[in-house]
Amino acid sequence: MSIRERLSGNEASAIAMKQINPDVVAAFPITPSTEIPQYFSTFVSNGTVNTEFIAVESEHSAMSACIGAEAAGSRAMTATSSNGLALMWEMIHIASSLRLPIVMPLVNRAISGPLNIHNDHSDAMGIRDSGWIMLFSENNQEAYDNLIMAHRIAEHKDVMLPLTVCQDGFITSHSIENIELIEDDKVKQFVGTYNPEHYLLNAKEPIAVGPMDLQAYLFEHKAQEADAMRNAKKVILDVAKDFEKLTGRKYSLFEEYKLDDADIAIVCMNSTAGTTKDVVDNLRNQGIKAGLLKIRVFRPFPAEEIAKALENCKAVAVLDKAEGLNACGGPLFTDVTSGMYVNNLNIPTISYIYGIGGRDVTTKHIESVYKDLIEISNTSKVNNPYRYLGLRRGDK
Amino acid sequence: MSIRERLSGNEASAIAMKQINPDVVAAFPITPSTEIPQYFSTFVSNGTVNTEFIAVESEHSAMSACIGAEAAGSRAMTATSSNGLALMWEMIHIASSLRLPIVMPLVNRAISGPLNIHNDHSDAMGIRDSGWIMLFSENNQEAYDNLIMAHRIAEHKDVMLPLTVCQDGFITSHSIENIELIEDDKVKQFVGTYNPEHYLLNAKEPIAVGPMDLQAYLFEHKAQEADAMRNAKKVILDVAKDFEKLTGRKYSLFEEYKLDDADIAIVCMNSTAGTTKDVVDNLRNQGIKAGLLKIRVFRPFPAEEIAKALENCKAVAVLDKAEGLNACGGPLFTDVTSGMYVNNLNIPTISYIYGIGGRDVTTKHIESVYKDLIEISNTSKVNNPYRYLGLRRGDK
Amino acid sequence: MSIRERLSGNEASAIAMKQINPDVVAAFPITPSTEIPQYFSTFVSNGTVNTEFIAVESEHSAMSACIGAEAAGSRAMTATSSNGLALMWEMIHIASSLRLPIVMPLVNRAISGPLNIHNDHSDAMGIRDSGWIMLFSENNQEAYDNLIMAHRIAEHKDVMLPLTVCQDGFITSHSIENIELIEDDKVKQFVGTYNPEHYLLNAKEPIAVGPMDLQAYLFEHKAQEADAMRNAKKVILDVAKDFEKLTGRKYSLFEEYKLDDADIAIVCMNSTAGTTKDVVDNLRNQGIKAGLLKIRVFRPFPAEEIAKALENCKAVAVLDKAEGLNACGGPLFTDVTSGMYVNNLNIPTISYIYGIGGRDVTTKHIESVYKDLIEISNTSKVNNPYRYLGLRRGDK
Amino acid sequence: MSIRERLSGNEASAIAMKQINPDVVAAFPITPSTEIPQYFSTFVSNGTVNTEFIAVESEHSAMSACIGAEAAGSRAMTATSSNGLALMWEMIHIASSLRLPIVMPLVNRAISGPLNIHNDHSDAMGIRDSGWIMLFSENNQEAYDNLIMAHRIAEHKDVMLPLTVCQDGFITSHSIENIELIEDDKVKQFVGTYNPEHYLLNAKEPIAVGPMDLQAYLFEHKAQEADAMRNAKKVILDVAKDFEKLTGRKYSLFEEYKLDDADIAIVCMNSTAGTTKDVVDNLRNQGIKAGLLKIRVFRPFPAEEIAKALENCKAVAVLDKAEGLNACGGPLFTDVTSGMYVNNLNIPTISYIYGIGGRDVTTKHIESVYKDLIEISNTSKVNNPYRYLGLRRGDK
Repeated sequence: MSIRERLSGNEASAIAMKQINPDVVAAFPITPSTEIPQYFSTFVSNGTVNTEFIAVESEHSAMSACIGAEAAGSRAMTATSSNGLALMWEMIHIASSLRLPIVMPLVNRAISGPLNIHNDHSDAMGIRDSGWIMLFSENNQEAYDNLIMAHRIAEHKDVMLPLTVCQDGFITSHSIENIELIEDDKVKQFVGTYNPEHYLLNAKEPIAVGPMDLQAYLFEHKAQEADAMRNAKKVILDVAKDFEKLTGRKYSLFEEYKLDDADIAIVCMNSTAGTTKDVVDNLRNQGIKAGLLKIRVFRPFPAEEIAKALENCKAVAVLDKAEGLNACGGPLFTDVTSGMYVNNLNIPTISYIYGIGGRDVTTKHIESVYKDLIEISNTSKVNNPYRYLGLRRGDK
Repeated sequence: MSIRERLSGNEASAIAMKQINPDVVAAFPITPSTEIPQYFSTFVSNGTVNTEFIAVESEHSAMSACIGAEAAGSRAMTATSSNGLALMWEMIHIASSLRLPIVMPLVNRAISGPLNIHNDHSDAMGIRDSGWIMLFSENNQEAYDNLIMAHRIAEHKDVMLPLTVCQDGFITSHSIENIELIEDDKVKQFVGTYNPEHYLLNAKEPIAVGPMDLQAYLFEHKAQEADAMRNAKKVILDVAKDFEKLTGRKYSLFEEYKLDDADIAIVCMNSTAGTTKDVVDNLRNQGIKAGLLKIRVFRPFPAEEIAKALENCKAVAVLDKAEGLNACGGPLFTDVTSGMYVNNLNIPTISYIYGIGGRDVTTKHIESVYKDLIEISNTSKVNNPYRYLGLRRGDK
Repeated sequence: MSIRERLSGNEASAIAMKQINPDVVAAFPITPSTEIPQYFSTFVSNGTVNTEFIAVESEHSAMSACIGAEAAGSRAMTATSSNGLALMWEMIHIASSLRLPIVMPLVNRAISGPLNIHNDHSDAMGIRDSGWIMLFSENNQEAYDNLIMAHRIAEHKDVMLPLTVCQDGFITSHSIENIELIEDDKVKQFVGTYNPEHYLLNAKEPIAVGPMDLQAYLFEHKAQEADAMRNAKKVILDVAKDFEKLTGRKYSLFEEYKLDDADIAIVCMNSTAGTTKDVVDNLRNQGIKAGLLKIRVFRPFPAEEIAKALENCKAVAVLDKAEGLNACGGPLFTDVTSGMYVNNLNIPTISYIYGIGGRDVTTKHIESVYKDLIEISNTSKVNNPYRYLGLRRGDK
Repeated sequence: MSIRERLSGNEASAIAMKQINPDVVAAFPITPSTEIPQYFSTFVSNGTVNTEFIAVESEHSAMSACIGAEAAGSRAMTATSSNGLALMWEMIHIASSLRLPIVMPLVNRAISGPLNIHNDHSDAMGIRDSGWIMLFSENNQEAYDNLIMAHRIAEHKDVMLPLTVCQDGFITSHSIENIELIEDDKVKQFVGTYNPEHYLLNAKEPIAVGPMDLQAYLFEHKAQEADAMRNAKKVILDVAKDFEKLTGRKYSLFEEYKLDDADIAIVCMNSTAGTTKDVVDNLRNQGIKAGLLKIRVFRPFPAEEIAKALENCKAVAVLDKAEGLNACGGPLFTDVTSGMYVNNLNIPTISYIYGIGGRDVTTKHIESVYKDLIEISNTSKVNNPYRYLGLRRGDK
């Protein structure tokens, strides 16, 4: 029997970490993820977990400590947001290239500057090429479930990559919602123990970690890392199947909400999906065939699967909670359309930048997108594929 | 009369900086860009320039000092590579979002780990969403010319964004090639003086820089930043026209090399374009209609213009000197194909990852790509759109 | 029944810390004290102690963390040597002025530069005015015993000052000698629990720690701190009495070795006292009335008591394992002679600088000092009161 | 002809530095010395000096940069106060032991904690054994004059030690007083150029600076450093003679103010001497033979010369603007009485701690000391040799 609770997204994440009971947590506080290490440190203090908590002096050190701990052969976790991630950016790449399956909740917040503590996805987008598996979460339940599945994915011998679980800062991290928790022993059994093949504290196999890797080898190592990222897709799905058996909750690479027969569809991530579902339901009641594709697995990017899921749509909108600043559209839009290109689609597709720096996103905004899509699907003409939603100026 | 010289790419960059004579240079040394601040500091010591050289204690501080200097109203420059860029990553975003037209040579080197000091573009790719204008350079001449044009672009009132000039570490940074330098006084006249509209040291207009920017305003500021990035395209072209008048050397958003009537084309950046031109010439001699599109302006990304330039090709290869690690292809490939999608193209296009960590790229490799493209253009069938070039395994 | 063991001085210190079982240990490794936190961290790992071990990123942070922990109401310890102490020097003063009874083993090593990892007392001398109680230890037994007594002294309500226990780097820290340990439960009972009167985590009494303390109050606070230092003398003696009851081992402010009827005496600290005792025994066998005054309590400095103990001597040598670099003699010599002045003595007294940077000190050296003293006591004439012992040049 | 001006002590120091025109200044601001690098940096900006100004990121770096610059063969200066000095404490010892004649104004301020920005001498006392020559200054004129003489002393081949010039924070650093400046060209000629015998940038003599210096040599190097400190006395006097020829202003190791025939005398340093002179004048008017010994050269400590100067007094008070926290008296008191002991004096001498944390010191306080001394000289009995002046409690 699962446990019904009311928790914020941060609490849910901290409880997942408690149930995972990692060997090492090294963290430095930053809004809005501060609560995660804060809650977790009380578990350490109370002896609820066996974790070594390392109170590091910066986020650069937090990731460095996790790297050392994982290389030594232990499970290490941290949590951060925004400029915390920015300060550990150098080490983010070292974690993945050393193939260390560190798991990190990332509570998404706008990257400075100017200083803003509220939600958008500009922090997450900044590490999308860094070799980390990236899972996004609509709500506290998904943030929790993704963390429970994380180590099984990251530590899989075909993967061995770090993994981050994203959720929207304040919107889900600080909102209290209903949640179903899994019993501690079941989590323990599901997650299993970490048995790395190679690790520094293995006295029987002395190894070096992180030496010079010049022209003769780095390419091959990077290709192996890319293979691992491709491999992750299958592993993610396999783990999801096991998770479904345990909980009845079904996860895939993305969620298709009334997408089967949809004429118009929105692609988005995290909490906006919830708002969108409500709009889809209303539109369906009006006889409009609206659908939603909610990305769960952003890295590896399931381009082919997304293209397939969208192939019968007449117009698609991709919602990015981060400015691409590339003069072409948001990063998710670029990924989706590139994937559609490779998979020979030719559906009018629009990039909407929205919700930057915590700007509210309401059902009205989402309705306006679907309205745009209806118009486009009628004419098959796109006047401007790079649009804003909720911006205070003429664009929209 | 221009000055004929033989210089390495680093020397050429340092000389450009000398002729620009910025108010402030703040830099921390890292291979392979170390020589740039090193040469420049001798200009400071010898009184050849009026620049205040700040010997900072990390790259994070280097960019911070540039931010302070630019905000104060002066021209500030730095130079870096790889993990130097990684350590300043937090401040990179602050520089652009505060709309400070800092100019920085970036001598491209693989991002760690494992540790590798040689060339690829993984460092540059890591800041492609950060609001910096990014120019790439095939050789020392282009690295020099791009720097001479940089401030005119970055400081333009419609732009006001930082700008980085990339070149390939060691391959061009340390190779000595012929170059034509512009006379000092002509550079001085061309670059002009910096007259910021708003700056901290303006006693007549007290302002704050970098305060809180919460939900009510950040979105608008980011949209303005995105506008500025879009505006940069026209400014870049205008500056290039003036530059052509001065030097006879013609620059655009990208270089089309025998692309007009090409059936097959490669898209690439930096020094590989030189190798590719040689192969194109050979293929043309054999009657094969091969062409090259060499990206000069990577940010803002000229998606539409690229699509137009490639529209008559039968097969295209996009060469990425960085693993996307997204399971789909390299970052340049993603940008190009997304742009082709938006612009309604449907040409078989392949992603090739190559040259990682300094792996040699020879004419043989490039020839093999064109051979692939010929095959694809014949069949219009793509077996695997995500390929490797020069990797020691079965893929290629 | 005590426990007979063979331990190095570092092991003995670590075991004392284990038996004390402090709430917090924050330490950064530096030769030759590294072993202390190293051994201790294994006790933490094994659950032998309840201590929170904070793996800080510098010695400045080590002392800062101890300050925070003590201010919060817990017992905090660290250990260091030489430049580790130098880097925490700023915080050393804050610890004492905030009246936080932190206890710290200090394994004495020469302060750089040039770089030297061996023993002298130049590190300890650098904090002699900082408001720390300073105990010196001839051997592993005394290092252990001093630590067991430390908290009773430091935390006494009339004292409330931090305390450091010194021993000679390598000479005693790494030499294995016989030792008598006290049983764990007896230590626990002897040391007792820490019940601070005022502390940050006391929810019933909200306080601020370390605010501005300007002209109106700092003087009074410093005078209270000086009072506390004076009060410490009595407390140290009281605790020693209790310790004697527990162990039979007798401690005072200093040890008088055959000093009662001595004509000539050496004053010294730490391991040199052992060598000197051997020489005293030999000289006594020859009918020479040689004696030794071994300082245990260097701060508070027992000037009056020392003067009284030496009042019948005809010549005294003060051995300093640190250059005063003041043109007058070693710091211990200055303290002793100042105290003799205040107490109206007029005995020929010589400063010997010796053992700097780990220079060997043998019985021959000590014999030569007594020989000098015999000569001086005969003539009552001092040619040069500032001498060297074991220096490779004409002086001696 | 000298230049008559009205300047604060900080301005006077900055102007001395301007006239000295050192090769390198590396500084980090801290109250109350901030103005010195601030004024100086404007001289750099305006091209008034040829100095390389290094805007370091901490005081630890400030001293490190000075060490590097001096080792390279240039003249380097910095300025600091209180916790700035505390943070550079590690490097302070490296500067002197590498025999680098760095010159540093030290504007005395209480060492934290608790936090206090006002004057006492606790910062200076903390480096009195570190191998730095220490000159104290009653007023802006002396702060200026001491700096003009500094390099001649520090760089003398018999000395080669760093030197600090102290003055009282705010009391003289921020008070504007009359001053006589020396003409620039005369200062230039007086100070001369720096021609180090050994330096890193001497291509003809490759040397290493700061390598390992273990048991076999450190003692000899420290003894040489101590010799240098002793040698400094003569050099200081020689330089003072030359300075007198230039300016007519006479300096010695200390100033004797109506001390020749004094029965009672105060020994003190810095600005308190001015207050004391006023009291001495008043007492002399009353027929009381009061005198003053104002220490100028605190390191090397002129113990013998002081003893000789005081030998005919009947009672002496030593005023310390720093708590010794050793249970015996202030550090200057310890030095003076130790010196009197060695030189066979037997005069009642009292330690007064005063002025801590900026507590006002008025003529009334000084009068009360002389009153005490009169009483003591009558009875030759000292009830309490460790007293406070201006403290708000029963002591005085």
